[in-house]
Amino acid sequence: TSVKSRFAKSLINCHKGNSTEDILYHLDLGTKTHNLPAMFGDIKFVCVGGSPNRMRAFAQFMHRELGLAGDGEDVADICAGSDRYAMYRAGPVLSISHGMGIPSISIMLHELIKLLHHAKCRDVTIIRIGTSGGLGIKAGSVVITDTAVDSSFQPRFEQVVLGDVVVRSTELDKDLAEELLACSREIPDFPTLIGHTMCTYDFYEGQGRLDGALCSFSSEKKLEYLRRAYDAGVRNIEMESTAFAALCGLCGLKAAVVCVTLLDRLEGDQIRASHEVLWEYQQRPQRLIAALIRKRLGLGPALLPAD
Amino acid sequence: TSVKSRFAKSLINCHKGNSTEDILYHLDLGTKTHNLPAMFGDIKFVCVGGSPNRMRAFAQFMHRELGLAGDGEDVADICAGSDRYAMYRAGPVLSISHGMGIPSISIMLHELIKLLHHAKCRDVTIIRIGTSGGLGIKAGSVVITDTAVDSSFQPRFEQVVLGDVVVRSTELDKDLAEELLACSREIPDFPTLIGHTMCTYDFYEGQGRLDGALCSFSSEKKLEYLRRAYDAGVRNIEMESTAFAALCGLCGLKAAVVCVTLLDRLEGDQIRASHEVLWEYQQRPQRLIAALIRKRLGLGPALLPAD
Repeated sequence: TSVKSRFAKSLINCHKGNSTEDILYHLDLGTKTHNLPAMFGDIKFVCVGGSPNRMRAFAQFMHRELGLAGDGEDVADICAGSDRYAMYRAGPVLSISHGMGIPSISIMLHELIKLLHHAKCRDVTIIRIGTSGGLGIKAGSVVITDTAVDSSFQPRFEQVVLGDVVVRSTELDKDLAEELLACSREIPDFPTLIGHTMCTYDFYEGQGRLDGALCSFSSEKKLEYLRRAYDAGVRNIEMESTAFAALCGLCGLKAAVVCVTLLDRLEGDQIRASHEVLWEYQQRPQRLIAALIRKRLGLGPALLPAD
Repeated sequence: TSVKSRFAKSLINCHKGNSTEDILYHLDLGTKTHNLPAMFGDIKFVCVGGSPNRMRAFAQFMHRELGLAGDGEDVADICAGSDRYAMYRAGPVLSISHGMGIPSISIMLHELIKLLHHAKCRDVTIIRIGTSGGLGIKAGSVVITDTAVDSSFQPRFEQVVLGDVVVRSTELDKDLAEELLACSREIPDFPTLIGHTMCTYDFYEGQGRLDGALCSFSSEKKLEYLRRAYDAGVRNIEMESTAFAALCGLCGLKAAVVCVTLLDRLEGDQIRASHEVLWEYQQRPQRLIAALIRKRLGLGPALLPAD
């Protein structure tokens, strides 16, 4: 299913009397100021992640992996007119930062999906590459999400619309998850698993950390909660996956979430690994996505490590 | 009340066995790697806002307003080792970006409040300076929040702790709000009012916009909701105030929220003003906070326009 065919209905429903111009405010792009079909019509892969620097590094990495002309070091920020998000492209791959948390990724996704619609993109695959806390798996493991769940371990996203709660499915593309797992098996020393990902609204109290500015529970209560999450199938915890799955699903985008774990939350709360170790961990989702894209494009397995 | 006296209890409750080092991960600061009392012990004002560029401009503006040596153009990002947040200081004023939405500001506030605690700061005033959508007031108006309310117009913040919802008060400092209003009256051509601020988890469906990627309601239903918000006392809508009020209140920080309105939501959804007009609007909360800080420090009324 293309973005357009699934997405046109809701757009048409909404833009009555307002269809002359669409300003994608937080991306600093618009239908009158930019030729979106010329700029983005050939995009087939969209990768999103929280950190602007990481998404710039991913675009540079993909530039090399795709064998494009030049070294890709001078990749330009397409959203340079706004400091809310950063956007880069390498061939058919768009790399965009979304900041931290559901509200921040939701704003970006609404405007990205409208961009893909205005640009008449078709058959787009979208993947979130992120960092997360692991549950009962060793730090550095890559988790491919089968189902995004909320803090009650339920596969749902609660969206407030005009003050009322609307519950939405957080299903992700199962074939894409399996395709990613198969790609991971071709990369040596690359611990990867498929599991549930828990999405929270907060990094500290919301994820049962004891080391926030506020803490109203004991270490025992924390571990009891995290063990219940593990027993429910949760293998990592982050802050965007349920909204990402719900919005992409409703708009007909084939979507996946691939996060590396920076620590095992059953063993602690603080992220104590060195910058060098954390940097290598953060490259792992990028390497897996590069392998998938190279395979899709018939370029063979990924060879270069990200840097 | 100082940060420390109110805050120590919860910290001590939480850091059993973990008190040797505290890593403020998203700020790239820590108690072993940085001398936090030397770096921040004299901070008396903390200003936070969504955009990193805007908070850098605010630090440069305050540098001039405080008559500090040099032009302040070369102000350094104290969190340069992380691209999650940007932090600058000008004399006793700390200026920090928090990104968009409750989860993003919550992470920053947890680590900021621990920073203020470790630095032994006392009698700190914290103010969020932001942008917002107005309700029934003209674009460019500055709203000083008396009460932050949720999407049901209730003065509460629902924090999920270990999977359970905990309801917290969103009360802000009434004396500080009145002091800010008095400062605004000394600035010519400076439309300012005190009102309720509605905080949502989403910019599009959550604020009743018709122009998102998804839209499941009519223009009539949207206007009915926004008019109910107006009748409940809401004068502007943004995405951080309830969590900001709740967390600062629980930690004993005197807090205020000062946002400029970029449009009147009763008249439309898209932000269509020019970059120049929007830039001038965004300077208004900065000018008001500068006036307050100059008054508190006995420097007289602010004279320079922000640039």
